[in-house]
Amino acid sequence: MKFQIEQKDLYDGIQIVQKAVASKQTMPILTGIYLEAKKNKGLHLIGTDLELGIEHYIDADIKEEGSIVIPATSFTQLVRELPKEKIYFEVDKEHYQINLSCSNSEFDLKGYDPEEYPQLPEINVPENFKLATENLKKLIREVEFSTSNDETQPALTGALLNITENEIIMVSTNTYRLAFSKMKTNINFENKEEIEIILPSKTLNELSRLLEGEEVEIFVDSNYIKFKFDDITIISRLIEGKFPNYRQVMPDKYNTKLFVNKKDLQNAVKRASLIAKMDSNVLNLKTSDDKLIINSANSEQGYAHEEIKVDIEGPDQKITIDAGYLLDVLKIIDEKEVRLELIGPLNPFTLKKMDNENYIYLIMPVRSD
Amino acid sequence: MKFQIEQKDLYDGIQIVQKAVASKQTMPILTGIYLEAKKNKGLHLIGTDLELGIEHYIDADIKEEGSIVIPATSFTQLVRELPKEKIYFEVDKEHYQINLSCSNSEFDLKGYDPEEYPQLPEINVPENFKLATENLKKLIREVEFSTSNDETQPALTGALLNITENEIIMVSTNTYRLAFSKMKTNINFENKEEIEIILPSKTLNELSRLLEGEEVEIFVDSNYIKFKFDDITIISRLIEGKFPNYRQVMPDKYNTKLFVNKKDLQNAVKRASLIAKMDSNVLNLKTSDDKLIINSANSEQGYAHEEIKVDIEGPDQKITIDAGYLLDVLKIIDEKEVRLELIGPLNPFTLKKMDNENYIYLIMPVRSD
Repeated sequence: MKFQIEQKDLYDGIQIVQKAVASKQTMPILTGIYLEAKKNKGLHLIGTDLELGIEHYIDADIKEEGSIVIPATSFTQLVRELPKEKIYFEVDKEHYQINLSCSNSEFDLKGYDPEEYPQLPEINVPENFKLATENLKKLIREVEFSTSNDETQPALTGALLNITENEIIMVSTNTYRLAFSKMKTNINFENKEEIEIILPSKTLNELSRLLEGEEVEIFVDSNYIKFKFDDITIISRLIEGKFPNYRQVMPDKYNTKLFVNKKDLQNAVKRASLIAKMDSNVLNLKTSDDKLIINSANSEQGYAHEEIKVDIEGPDQKITIDAGYLLDVLKIIDEKEVRLELIGPLNPFTLKKMDNENYIYLIMPVRSD
Repeated sequence: MKFQIEQKDLYDGIQIVQKAVASKQTMPILTGIYLEAKKNKGLHLIGTDLELGIEHYIDADIKEEGSIVIPATSFTQLVRELPKEKIYFEVDKEHYQINLSCSNSEFDLKGYDPEEYPQLPEINVPENFKLATENLKKLIREVEFSTSNDETQPALTGALLNITENEIIMVSTNTYRLAFSKMKTNINFENKEEIEIILPSKTLNELSRLLEGEEVEIFVDSNYIKFKFDDITIISRLIEGKFPNYRQVMPDKYNTKLFVNKKDLQNAVKRASLIAKMDSNVLNLKTSDDKLIINSANSEQGYAHEEIKVDIEGPDQKITIDAGYLLDVLKIIDEKEVRLELIGPLNPFTLKKMDNENYIYLIMPVRSD
């Protein structure tokens, strides 16, 4: 195996696949990056921890075909520090020894037997959906923060992805709050079944980071999902289990509607939560005249009082909610104004965009005495 | 106590004194910032952990004089999040309760009794030295990184400051490496004794961060040193004990002299140390023809070879040194080229600036077999 490659191309390529590389040492070879040099195809990079795999092709001048697995951490650091010039690779197949030179630097690294590197799962479905990359990115951004960390309920640690003929829906919840985002789409649906799967949180993060280009092709089978875009392929195991029936917790009415400047709300919540955080991170919200009043208190005798001008329709309300859950959504939403919908102190607090029902974020109230 | 102050002025002021605030809870009141409002003087802020104290005056509109101690962490976070408008303070003296309002926000915070806040030590020496701020900053920058972390030898955890009629010298060492920086000065020295004291590492860091303006006034007594510049006063306890006789380890000759581009050396050492780091972080340096060759190897069978073009005067040399010690100095030195002086494999490796003896950095060799 022998090839030449530009330092920048290699470094960018490594960064793409590196996040899928296993950090734990249960199978040492998985802490490496798989490299395969193929004439006319360039250099093929793979990283995987068996849950998630990322593949990427980059241009390289292949002199002799072959493959090797290189320890990811030292390889990444080394390539980062090399000058922005051509790097020459040569691999001693018998001893998995990599020789790498660039300008006046030369390095030997010990690699792993590429034959022992696990193959990424094949997804043999001919049909696939194509989605606009930008749409998928937006859906992920709007729900990924709201998954659960509780490993005893695996279905909640990911986000539901539901693709039908007319809509794509993503939902995530930890049972105390829920994020729902949907989008119209017109997929050619002949012979295809509606898709309803749960994507792991790490897969969502990597998609957010890497998705680019115009369109992404999606392939789904019973255990895996594959995303293809540009020269990148992401293959992820799906989470088994049943996602809760989220529709039954989503209110179909409200008594009071508020329109509020997002930035004002975010700043007020941020400050009030500094006081709340010392205790339980709970905020008391109430409306009065044309104001939303936010109070928090803690046992160390700290107390916060914030007032925000709002437009209100309906009777005054009060409700107690977790400050962190409200901050989370305000951080990711781009709107200038948001709409809050309230029923009563024991019903969910709902946040939506101004003029559509495509994004719905629920926070369950905290019982305050 | 009652005053008004601009958010930005208060936030900047808090950041100046905050680093001296104690982080540990041995004396809870020291985790707070002392505030004193004085008519015609503005707001006086103090932070101290008893080793280091920082005082700062800021403009404020004082309505009623008084003082209070406010928990530093929550206060800093809160002030940071307030809008860039006027903040109104009012303190209930009896309960040490602080009421703070700004725009539509209002907060109550529980403070501490200001009477219990320890006074910063008085330094009653009439004489003082004045130094150009820029000179002191440079000296500190050139030695602060090279102090020891070994608390069993307190004198080495700080830097020696030696002020004579003609020179200011700073030196730091952990016995494996040593940084020496000196500067000509002409201090009016009548009736003043030569100063030879040890400054704690934390004090050096805070001076680096805060020093500004044209000149800094320095007051020294047997236990403390005080620095005054702009509206800031820094008072630091001195380290007791005897600083080692560094002059006896500084070579007064060399056999071989090398001139090398600093950036080239830094990049080569950085890369070679990635391989070295897996083991002992040791580099083998040798000269050959007009090249400096740097090698490192580790037991995982990694190997690095770097070559740098240099100008050499004298016989070829080889030496083994710690990569980290060399990287440290290359990080802080601004020169385009540096001078390396070598005697033999068992003598110190010396790095200097090109054309003067004002900066001398020594690394003791590692015995290689």
